[in-house]
Amino acid sequence: MDQLFSYKQLSAFAKNIFLKIGCSANDAAIATETLLSADLRGVDSHGVARLSGYVRLWEAQRVNAKPSIKIIHETPSTAVVDGDAGLGLVVAPFAMQVAIDKAKNVGSGWVSVQNSNHYGIAGHHAMMALTHDMIGISMTNASALVAPTFSRDKMLGTNPIAVAIPAGKEAAFVADFATTTAANGKLEILQRKNKPVPAGWVQTKDGEESLNAHELKEGGALLPLGGNREGSSHKGYMLGSIVDIFSGVLSGANYGPWVPPFPAYIPMPANMPGKGIGHFFGAMRIDAFRPAEDFKKEMDQWIQAFKNATPINEKERVIIPGEPEIAFEKERRGNGIPLGTAVIESLQELGLKFKVEW
Amino acid sequence: MDQLFSYKQLSAFAKNIFLKIGCSANDAAIATETLLSADLRGVDSHGVARLSGYVRLWEAQRVNAKPSIKIIHETPSTAVVDGDAGLGLVVAPFAMQVAIDKAKNVGSGWVSVQNSNHYGIAGHHAMMALTHDMIGISMTNASALVAPTFSRDKMLGTNPIAVAIPAGKEAAFVADFATTTAANGKLEILQRKNKPVPAGWVQTKDGEESLNAHELKEGGALLPLGGNREGSSHKGYMLGSIVDIFSGVLSGANYGPWVPPFPAYIPMPANMPGKGIGHFFGAMRIDAFRPAEDFKKEMDQWIQAFKNATPINEKERVIIPGEPEIAFEKERRGNGIPLGTAVIESLQELGLKFKVEW
Repeated sequence: MDQLFSYKQLSAFAKNIFLKIGCSANDAAIATETLLSADLRGVDSHGVARLSGYVRLWEAQRVNAKPSIKIIHETPSTAVVDGDAGLGLVVAPFAMQVAIDKAKNVGSGWVSVQNSNHYGIAGHHAMMALTHDMIGISMTNASALVAPTFSRDKMLGTNPIAVAIPAGKEAAFVADFATTTAANGKLEILQRKNKPVPAGWVQTKDGEESLNAHELKEGGALLPLGGNREGSSHKGYMLGSIVDIFSGVLSGANYGPWVPPFPAYIPMPANMPGKGIGHFFGAMRIDAFRPAEDFKKEMDQWIQAFKNATPINEKERVIIPGEPEIAFEKERRGNGIPLGTAVIESLQELGLKFKVEW
Repeated sequence: MDQLFSYKQLSAFAKNIFLKIGCSANDAAIATETLLSADLRGVDSHGVARLSGYVRLWEAQRVNAKPSIKIIHETPSTAVVDGDAGLGLVVAPFAMQVAIDKAKNVGSGWVSVQNSNHYGIAGHHAMMALTHDMIGISMTNASALVAPTFSRDKMLGTNPIAVAIPAGKEAAFVADFATTTAANGKLEILQRKNKPVPAGWVQTKDGEESLNAHELKEGGALLPLGGNREGSSHKGYMLGSIVDIFSGVLSGANYGPWVPPFPAYIPMPANMPGKGIGHFFGAMRIDAFRPAEDFKKEMDQWIQAFKNATPINEKERVIIPGEPEIAFEKERRGNGIPLGTAVIESLQELGLKFKVEW
């Protein structure tokens, strides 16, 4: 059974752990905010459940707790940021802020990041743009779990894309999705329930269709959005590739099959062509296109039109991207964040190891 | 049986038709190049097959053959272009050039377009960036044929996205895809063959799954990439929405269910909130991030790694986005462009009507 924990408690704990591994007070606060945003928004796979994973990366000397994050190349509207092997949870907000600052100056800002690590949920960084009346964009590559159409090899990560767009009276539009049919987290839920996965989620190591939720452990691969050739999996493969190139090739990070793994026990790929994991961020000032108030009124009309589209079943109306996460956040800020036994135990272990009160 | 026609013949004919409806010599040349790029690249649904459709839009006074296309708002890295109801075939290259010019100056350029019309194939415009060692991005909204997840209403167009990325010795990476499971053109092929469509392509007017290639004519809808809820159609719906908002809401064009139809016999939607169809273009100078030669070498390695990924069936290796179109172009420039009887007849009719030699 899940137990409920307050945001305050989990947040204080995570921050203390980040301090113990050597993060500055400022970095620990930023990393905590990024990490916990996943728990609040209902993306349980990317929140405190991963805290021990980040610590193991630090123990394996794959994460630098005291990075000197800096811009290594820039133009008025673009930059490349070197994350100095820091936590992606800290590197990403730095880079997104660079994009926002450039957008303030010249209308838009675009930042490709090298030498980083896992950055938490994509949407959190994109949403940094919203309070500035900007559109925010965030994407990252990740270690290869996905087979491109026609191949049995894992060549791409789940490479998510997030786009946050401000609205007026309505809540912001926040899309945040893996470019696979299903993110790994959804597979894990079905693994725990010992249930099959729908067609189009995974394939066997030989590239055959599979409904086995454990297929990845047996050498299989996740499938790109679209699932199979008839379902246009080549489009998911193209999307994942674009994310990989913008994040990895444009920045000088690793890409494709060479992206470093999140689990610290998995060896690093041989002959890595770049530095660490790559991300890509964008910010566009709304009033660099039209008055923000006009835009936000139109966005309200857009959102209302979609909410009011005739449902197939009366009880299921069209969902606006970001709506489910808002409901999660309201519920969890009020009543607490549910954690399963395995996650709680991993946090208790961290508490013992670093002498941090749980 | 298809007949073969030379690029030169079709090109001269299309240009003469554009001149006859009143386009300037310059605009007629640009419109022709854009239109024919679809025929060359194997996207038959968007080439000369549509010429009579563009003419009918002009006859219905929905297309202005002598537009005064202009920038109505700009910052160093962004602009909004008003297409003055011109042919999208002409408006789009104008706007993409604005993006390229801004990228030359400040590293990147982003242009949202209002008051335009159908712009041909998305990839053609994105590819304008390649010779400048830039990444090109092109997207457009379109009249609503697609039902968002959970709805029976048609709320989005097939809203394509194209991304063109330069490489070194390898051919450029050019992704160009509708954000639906299948583009309308693929349905039309199965209609002519009287064959069923795969699951996840269309739904009935009541929102039920369907394999009927004629479903759209019976009030049904195309489905977003992903096909159904289990296949993550909400991701295709999010992608199509992002294209719609960047193209329509950001520019002041129409959006969602209000985007004007391509067929001139279909009445315009009531209470349109904006002007015409919207597009969105981006250009990013590679050396605004890292030296172009370094990037292109890495792109070659990226492309070679994917080409060499282990295939599932020995005869089908991984395809790099843009490869099939290059093969089409080589074949068709050499041996001619195949046109079916219906298309040939539509061109002959145009020739008679405008006294242009066929």
